[in-house]
Amino acid sequence: MGSEAKIKVGIVGGTGYTGVELLRLLVNHPRAEVSVITSRAEAGLDVAALFPSLRGHLALAFSEPDTDLLARCDAVFFATPHGVAQAMMPQLMKTGVKVIDLSADFRLRDAGQWQQWYGQAHSSPELIERAVYGLPEVNRAAIREAQLVACPGCYPTAVQLGLIPLLERELVDPTRLIANAASGVSGAGRQAKVDNLLAEAADSFKAYGCGGHRHLPEIEQGLRAVQPPRAAAAQVTFVPHLLPLIRGIHATLYAVAAGDVGDLQALYQQRYAQEPFVDVLPPGQHPQTRTVKSSNMCRLSVFQPQQRDTVVVLSVIDNLTKGASGQAIQNMNIMFGFAEQAGLEQVALLP
Amino acid sequence: MGSEAKIKVGIVGGTGYTGVELLRLLVNHPRAEVSVITSRAEAGLDVAALFPSLRGHLALAFSEPDTDLLARCDAVFFATPHGVAQAMMPQLMKTGVKVIDLSADFRLRDAGQWQQWYGQAHSSPELIERAVYGLPEVNRAAIREAQLVACPGCYPTAVQLGLIPLLERELVDPTRLIANAASGVSGAGRQAKVDNLLAEAADSFKAYGCGGHRHLPEIEQGLRAVQPPRAAAAQVTFVPHLLPLIRGIHATLYAVAAGDVGDLQALYQQRYAQEPFVDVLPPGQHPQTRTVKSSNMCRLSVFQPQQRDTVVVLSVIDNLTKGASGQAIQNMNIMFGFAEQAGLEQVALLP
Amino acid sequence: MGSEAKIKVGIVGGTGYTGVELLRLLVNHPRAEVSVITSRAEAGLDVAALFPSLRGHLALAFSEPDTDLLARCDAVFFATPHGVAQAMMPQLMKTGVKVIDLSADFRLRDAGQWQQWYGQAHSSPELIERAVYGLPEVNRAAIREAQLVACPGCYPTAVQLGLIPLLERELVDPTRLIANAASGVSGAGRQAKVDNLLAEAADSFKAYGCGGHRHLPEIEQGLRAVQPPRAAAAQVTFVPHLLPLIRGIHATLYAVAAGDVGDLQALYQQRYAQEPFVDVLPPGQHPQTRTVKSSNMCRLSVFQPQQRDTVVVLSVIDNLTKGASGQAIQNMNIMFGFAEQAGLEQVALLP
Amino acid sequence: MGSEAKIKVGIVGGTGYTGVELLRLLVNHPRAEVSVITSRAEAGLDVAALFPSLRGHLALAFSEPDTDLLARCDAVFFATPHGVAQAMMPQLMKTGVKVIDLSADFRLRDAGQWQQWYGQAHSSPELIERAVYGLPEVNRAAIREAQLVACPGCYPTAVQLGLIPLLERELVDPTRLIANAASGVSGAGRQAKVDNLLAEAADSFKAYGCGGHRHLPEIEQGLRAVQPPRAAAAQVTFVPHLLPLIRGIHATLYAVAAGDVGDLQALYQQRYAQEPFVDVLPPGQHPQTRTVKSSNMCRLSVFQPQQRDTVVVLSVIDNLTKGASGQAIQNMNIMFGFAEQAGLEQVALLP
Repeated sequence: MGSEAKIKVGIVGGTGYTGVELLRLLVNHPRAEVSVITSRAEAGLDVAALFPSLRGHLALAFSEPDTDLLARCDAVFFATPHGVAQAMMPQLMKTGVKVIDLSADFRLRDAGQWQQWYGQAHSSPELIERAVYGLPEVNRAAIREAQLVACPGCYPTAVQLGLIPLLERELVDPTRLIANAASGVSGAGRQAKVDNLLAEAADSFKAYGCGGHRHLPEIEQGLRAVQPPRAAAAQVTFVPHLLPLIRGIHATLYAVAAGDVGDLQALYQQRYAQEPFVDVLPPGQHPQTRTVKSSNMCRLSVFQPQQRDTVVVLSVIDNLTKGASGQAIQNMNIMFGFAEQAGLEQVALLP
Repeated sequence: MGSEAKIKVGIVGGTGYTGVELLRLLVNHPRAEVSVITSRAEAGLDVAALFPSLRGHLALAFSEPDTDLLARCDAVFFATPHGVAQAMMPQLMKTGVKVIDLSADFRLRDAGQWQQWYGQAHSSPELIERAVYGLPEVNRAAIREAQLVACPGCYPTAVQLGLIPLLERELVDPTRLIANAASGVSGAGRQAKVDNLLAEAADSFKAYGCGGHRHLPEIEQGLRAVQPPRAAAAQVTFVPHLLPLIRGIHATLYAVAAGDVGDLQALYQQRYAQEPFVDVLPPGQHPQTRTVKSSNMCRLSVFQPQQRDTVVVLSVIDNLTKGASGQAIQNMNIMFGFAEQAGLEQVALLP
Repeated sequence: MGSEAKIKVGIVGGTGYTGVELLRLLVNHPRAEVSVITSRAEAGLDVAALFPSLRGHLALAFSEPDTDLLARCDAVFFATPHGVAQAMMPQLMKTGVKVIDLSADFRLRDAGQWQQWYGQAHSSPELIERAVYGLPEVNRAAIREAQLVACPGCYPTAVQLGLIPLLERELVDPTRLIANAASGVSGAGRQAKVDNLLAEAADSFKAYGCGGHRHLPEIEQGLRAVQPPRAAAAQVTFVPHLLPLIRGIHATLYAVAAGDVGDLQALYQQRYAQEPFVDVLPPGQHPQTRTVKSSNMCRLSVFQPQQRDTVVVLSVIDNLTKGASGQAIQNMNIMFGFAEQAGLEQVALLP
Repeated sequence: MGSEAKIKVGIVGGTGYTGVELLRLLVNHPRAEVSVITSRAEAGLDVAALFPSLRGHLALAFSEPDTDLLARCDAVFFATPHGVAQAMMPQLMKTGVKVIDLSADFRLRDAGQWQQWYGQAHSSPELIERAVYGLPEVNRAAIREAQLVACPGCYPTAVQLGLIPLLERELVDPTRLIANAASGVSGAGRQAKVDNLLAEAADSFKAYGCGGHRHLPEIEQGLRAVQPPRAAAAQVTFVPHLLPLIRGIHATLYAVAAGDVGDLQALYQQRYAQEPFVDVLPPGQHPQTRTVKSSNMCRLSVFQPQQRDTVVVLSVIDNLTKGASGQAIQNMNIMFGFAEQAGLEQVALLP
């Protein structure tokens, strides 16, 4: 892989699905190597004993979380439940290490709103303004300079990439947006819950969180930040659903055209022409989640059914890759000046 | 099962999934017995040789389609691709036999529209007006008197049951309806197509037919017929999706409130209080397709997220049961004066 | 359903998969009605709130386990983890109520062996000899007279029905039997365990318990009891596997022919000719688990590949029906003199 | 990826699952690039139009099969149904190009046996002796010198890697081997067949080909070639099964110990210590197919249940990778002197 030096990477909380996905991608990354991975519960255990897919690829054991140890890394990923990154961040930020947080801790700009949706006070509100929201297709320049990047949630990634072109051009009514989305079960994490048993979830489909899901404020915050400022009125009805499969998010987005929308296909193609991880499909094609499975790609289609005034955008990602760990590595690549696609060139696994 | 006589039932085209579902339900029906089942391709073959689930339950072979034979039945079901029922119907109707058509042949009231969506001229347009649209929750009285019932499509069943209460009360803007729906693969029938192979469809999710699906005109026709006549303006954006499972339809319906909608939960409960096959869930619960799998039930929930002006209705059915063969038998029960639930009391298979 | 009186049925431990399967079958049983269902954890909760598939079919709440209450029933089912039935049985047996135990508590004849495999002392060893092993195809006469029936495990049902005809005729070497079996995940119960999450188990296949599974001593006990006594030497290598589906057991059984085995197809057909729930497929056909899903049927095939001396028997059941709750009701029917198929005539759900 | 030149690769028959798997792996291979891909049916079509997962990774269209064009490649893969490679091979071999055949055409050493199992005469029997059987763990030296490599079938790969260590040490009776194996549906190819529809295969499990499967003679041929020659008596009862998932083969292998077998764990670890793509699990662990999904790894476990004389070996591979296209690339690497792991270092996709 050449003679370029590799940075040292630490992972906090490596026993979940975003943790093992980080490892899958990082063990073959040309510019990074994992030197620390922490887990309070599994400290001492060989990582490959927990995830046999890594046998032969990684010789590392989980260790106790330890800021000093992490500070010796060049980059630290948080793949933890919400609340953990907040607690460790003040101390860690002082060491100058660059931090990529996959959790929800620094996504919302408003600590009060965070408290409202997550049910606890934000423990490091002073750091929120230093966090850059890690959606490279919107914030690439800021990410390049950031010490702390807050990676978007999986649904917000798929929804924002689908709707932003319409809002940037003021083509739709921002107050009547609908995000009907569906996720594979891995989005619920590696937690022992009856609802996520194969016997409960494998032969069924359901909406959930219809009354309010934590990704709603994040989606609205992202859309409201779109320029020009008319988007500031953005309001979204967001209904997530649980798919009987492991990986994949599909968002079906509805917006009401504000007058003649012009050539939407051309708009989307232009908007994302330079983006390595956004692919606009040819007219009339529908994206399938399997065409992005295990890859960092987002694939999009745009329709105007029956030539009426409702615009439909379809957006698919792998929730664990572009929706979490892949996008985190994309952010790392940007922060360290690596090629943005480094370590992320896998072709989706099909069939 | 008592001493009441059983009617004789014929099935035209019994080799598909709606055919085997009719058989599953009819072999234990207290008032009906299957005496003829036709298939040009499989004539002579024992039905249980094609569908081993029926071994021990049915001793009958497929026979050539034959109007004389069918005329000796009391009721004839068509479980055929579109076009077949149209061709046989004029002759069959003359015999006086009651016909329940599961195909799309007599669902649309406008022969021109039928031709536009199905790509061929309607061959029995004169019979369209004699066909009653077989959605019992709307048309029970007419079904009782009908000789020919056109059973609704699977998506239209789920969508109409979900939206009708809102339109009947003029609570929403009829021109801005969205029906985001997803179906199990059995909806595509027992046809050898690459797209429906397990290796293609099992670990993926996609929208399809976004540009226009044949169930759209049927849905709009049904909604426009709702009284009072303000619903005549109904316009629906309909996006179907393919679920990686066998049975089940889930419709997520969005409508814009026209002012204060009042107590939607109460409205739905009242509307369906007397319906044996529509179940309105308690507030806050989300229906799962598995809770209706193999049963004739439709389960509904209604939400008003964030107390904003978008109403969300969730509706689930088993596409082969309430969405096809179960509803067909429900119609038969009504046409012959049987208990409406006769033969349809199965509990959904869970887990 | 006629004027015949219904017996009163109690269920102890109704929150698991065998519990809901009992309810699915019993709510439509012509001769039984569920009057008590207990759960310490869920006492007071409406059963249909836990299992929405039962909405409209059952108006009953879980109650605290209470021997007096259960004693007022005619039949009591135990759908509990091992150990529970043992503890309540002495008191319950005194009341004269008939008991059908779906758990492992009374399957093994040897209390020492039970302790060895289940890791605790048997608390009612004196009742073991009063328990009849509830495999109707072997023990129908004894079941008819029993007060306590111990229902076979799911794997043991599939394996014994497949191998018994060979052992009864002394056609194979009893010491070299192989039972390679696979089960759907519902066999692991409705327990929150990481290993049984959809994200862990849905896209994988594995053997488990290769070093020793609790169903092994039960299988060997059952086979060793086959007459004539040469079968007493039976020894089985049993390797269970976990299937990525919810319901179904498939056993692939291997035996070494002891000389000329004659017409095995005829042997199997004769052995099970009078059995309502065992179906021997035509020569050359392979049973599929889906052809028994939700039904109480066992389907069998027998092969002698390449005309060599290894006999292969294929056996499928639904682990929750013939492998648990269906067979339990079959036993109830026998114990109370009902038609053996009463309440068990469902056609398998296909597709 | 450095300055080393890349070889030119051609693929004959690239529209099936082994074709797209070759492409997935080759587009990121450091020493190879795909320059020709043929398909008579799809000539002219962009490859990424058929397989959208390749959008952005490959700019190549299918072309008509053409020996001259293929001869300009350094290596040609056949990913075709049986019969095709035989027909083109005489001409192609004369050009000196190296050929890696994924089909069954040159696996069997005996043209008569080939005809018996494949139902047609072998059209290039004179080339059979020039073909090297491409199981690197057995034939690495011969593969290095070969112009034509016949890649093993998927089942034969999993079965041989599992049984060979026992036969090499003469630890088991070679005449009583049992290979109980299960495969994902992708093994059946991308053919439109009713049996492989999601609605037919997704919620079921079955054995098939119990009377005789084409991989049986290949398995027996491979085992009989094991040295010392006592293995020449090898006889296998082979029962394949169809798993309701896309990728993965699991073989459960049974052999009768011929006396004391010693430390089997140590034997397996030593036998495969130097093999980059065979991983022997720690004692007591069971391999899962998901731990090799999308990777070229085979994972093995060995057990001696109850310390009786039956040895059980568990072996898993991804049927499309180590069982087909990955192993084909492994063979290419050996033939061209590349690092054997080049392009094959992907971590299995988990979850």
